[in-house]
Amino acid sequence: MTQPPQLGREIAERIDILGAISEMPDALTRIYLTPQHRAAADQLMAWMREAGMSAHLDAVGNVVGRYEGEMPGLPCLMLGSHYDTVRNAGKWDGPLGVVTAISCVGELNLQRKRFPFAIEVIGFADEEGVRFSSTLLGSRAIAGTFDERILDAVDREGVTMRQALAAFGLDASKIKTAARRRDDVLGYIELHIEQGPVLESLGSPVGLVTAISGATRLLIVFEGMAGHAGTVPMDQRRDALAGAAESILAIETYCCSHEGLVGTVGQAIVAPGATNVIPGKVTFTLDVRSGSDKQRRKAVEKLISKIEAIAAERSLTCHIARTHDNRSVPCAPSISLQIANAIRQQGHAVHELPSGAGHDGMAIADICDIGMIFVRCRGGISHHPDEHVELSDVEAGARILFETIANFNVSSKSG
Amino acid sequence: MTQPPQLGREIAERIDILGAISEMPDALTRIYLTPQHRAAADQLMAWMREAGMSAHLDAVGNVVGRYEGEMPGLPCLMLGSHYDTVRNAGKWDGPLGVVTAISCVGELNLQRKRFPFAIEVIGFADEEGVRFSSTLLGSRAIAGTFDERILDAVDREGVTMRQALAAFGLDASKIKTAARRRDDVLGYIELHIEQGPVLESLGSPVGLVTAISGATRLLIVFEGMAGHAGTVPMDQRRDALAGAAESILAIETYCCSHEGLVGTVGQAIVAPGATNVIPGKVTFTLDVRSGSDKQRRKAVEKLISKIEAIAAERSLTCHIARTHDNRSVPCAPSISLQIANAIRQQGHAVHELPSGAGHDGMAIADICDIGMIFVRCRGGISHHPDEHVELSDVEAGARILFETIANFNVSSKSG
Repeated sequence: MTQPPQLGREIAERIDILGAISEMPDALTRIYLTPQHRAAADQLMAWMREAGMSAHLDAVGNVVGRYEGEMPGLPCLMLGSHYDTVRNAGKWDGPLGVVTAISCVGELNLQRKRFPFAIEVIGFADEEGVRFSSTLLGSRAIAGTFDERILDAVDREGVTMRQALAAFGLDASKIKTAARRRDDVLGYIELHIEQGPVLESLGSPVGLVTAISGATRLLIVFEGMAGHAGTVPMDQRRDALAGAAESILAIETYCCSHEGLVGTVGQAIVAPGATNVIPGKVTFTLDVRSGSDKQRRKAVEKLISKIEAIAAERSLTCHIARTHDNRSVPCAPSISLQIANAIRQQGHAVHELPSGAGHDGMAIADICDIGMIFVRCRGGISHHPDEHVELSDVEAGARILFETIANFNVSSKSG
Repeated sequence: MTQPPQLGREIAERIDILGAISEMPDALTRIYLTPQHRAAADQLMAWMREAGMSAHLDAVGNVVGRYEGEMPGLPCLMLGSHYDTVRNAGKWDGPLGVVTAISCVGELNLQRKRFPFAIEVIGFADEEGVRFSSTLLGSRAIAGTFDERILDAVDREGVTMRQALAAFGLDASKIKTAARRRDDVLGYIELHIEQGPVLESLGSPVGLVTAISGATRLLIVFEGMAGHAGTVPMDQRRDALAGAAESILAIETYCCSHEGLVGTVGQAIVAPGATNVIPGKVTFTLDVRSGSDKQRRKAVEKLISKIEAIAAERSLTCHIARTHDNRSVPCAPSISLQIANAIRQQGHAVHELPSGAGHDGMAIADICDIGMIFVRCRGGISHHPDEHVELSDVEAGARILFETIANFNVSSKSG
């Protein structure tokens, strides 16, 4: 058995170094195909080479490091996460998975360990989708599911993705060369911060992800009748906001009583929107997620019925549009079992949880089994400068990833 | 007994003429101290003189018409309403009361009727308060309660009220000369459209106003914790919008179960306000009105307790500010009794209702007893181009006002 190394400090130092590569000095912002993207890629490739890997930038801007197995050209275990950020980001979301994987490989290299598989570490170029409003660009290119229509999308300066690739030194027509064959990839494991408060509330440094939740988003418009706040008696009102309020509570009640389901009304816009006018119209959103597609679909159906009934009861017109519908992506039991073993081996209880946020694994699942390790983050805060991971949790995550790699079972590949 | 005249058609024609005096051709807008104010005042004074009255513009811009009684200089019965409008207004809100009163006096003059009291018809210059964000400027000047601090308020072009008065040919230092002595005014009667749906739902052309409702306005801020819509389980949320929704329903439930009370949440602003983010902060308003100050005060107290309890239960911080607090102004029984008699005499049932909207009578109540007649308006719609009064209801309102004047009991003055 390989002894897990002490990698936490190196990882945390590298997170700080990457966190300083930002287009704004005081607000971490590292956007796809910018000079900061280039600088971060160069830094990652330097660390990859230092860890004994070959490294290159692929056709979409992913950083790809490869550590050969017992002989050259073996199928790989793929590790990784993304290294782009949202605007005014935290420094852990994404980079922790890339940097931890590099450090693990570096340690294996130091120990001169080779396996009956290669290891690849990918730094995905664009997961957040800030620049072109389309997520998972890097991982979709690798999975061979990149949608070329996005090449004509423009950023806020009016630059198309095609132009931005060219300015970066990449050729849009070559993106398909980034795609990987199913036979070449044994599995994919991503380590990522939880971006939620569950592990903190459980007192656990790490968690085993069961699935990346599917999500349905609805846009709901209630229309009633605006009126004077003083002159229309309560029983003659058709108050769109009162109807929305009843719906919001019904959504909360339903989701609270179904384990594993979350439902959020994140936005509500009230018109006309004056203190002394009864609201005639409210536009509100609903975001429903679950690790189980069956649970999510049933919830959406029940909630739509409930919302429509509330509108009818109040003589409000109701229009519901489905703006987003993404299936759940399960983590593969074969890989999750190996991660669970590593977690137990490191003396931790195995806490299973779904990932409510999306990750590159959603795209990579199209070419291989995936597994995910969550690391606790303080207060569940993410996409914010206050995002923080304790050094001991960085260490715990690294040890578990290292153990999982070192004990990876090549024959676990399904299908 | 004087025979009620057929005045409806004349009144409706004059409403059309006034409705065409607007700063925008397609959206009735007649604002204080503008050329349209001047044009409407000139028109009203011309009709007053035609009706046998003396007419002048007072120091604040009110139009004052006087029809002497059996001898010159007698105390007056004051009639009136306002002739300014909101932006993109209906043509009936305000002018109906002024024009109907002029037509009634015109008919009395035709019939050569003189009474043991004078009649004054006032067109109040600024009730809506659009230009300087302060209501009842005209009626407060007459009541002697004009607050001179408003003279330094600026309109959206940066012009102070003092400057606007000067440009109009009025002298701010003379406003106090518009004030009337209590001994000179026997009572005040205002005819106005209901601006609500109650009379329509009762199938009644007119209503007797019991009081102008007092109003309390609150600004409520709930703060919880923003978070990712996918990663924070339902039982770990502090969702400010869910708390606001529960409050909105509690307000509705309370007000629905208390006859005569209305409570409205007219505005709610959700932050950060994204589909996939749990709301961390909601700012919402509450407007509570009742003809009974006791009922309103108790309601506000109960609702504040309820809102605070909801916030506490959900671990939200709650800040409540009282932005407005106006007592109710009751209509005087002595005058209401006379209006009720006139309503019955015209063959209608007497429907009593509070006025949820404010009116000039609120200010005039400081110098004399007041009474109000409401006229049904279609769909309860007001402050909107769709505002409409049927000709037969104009006629009904005019006959009742005429009857009330013709039978006015001078000795009814209280105190």
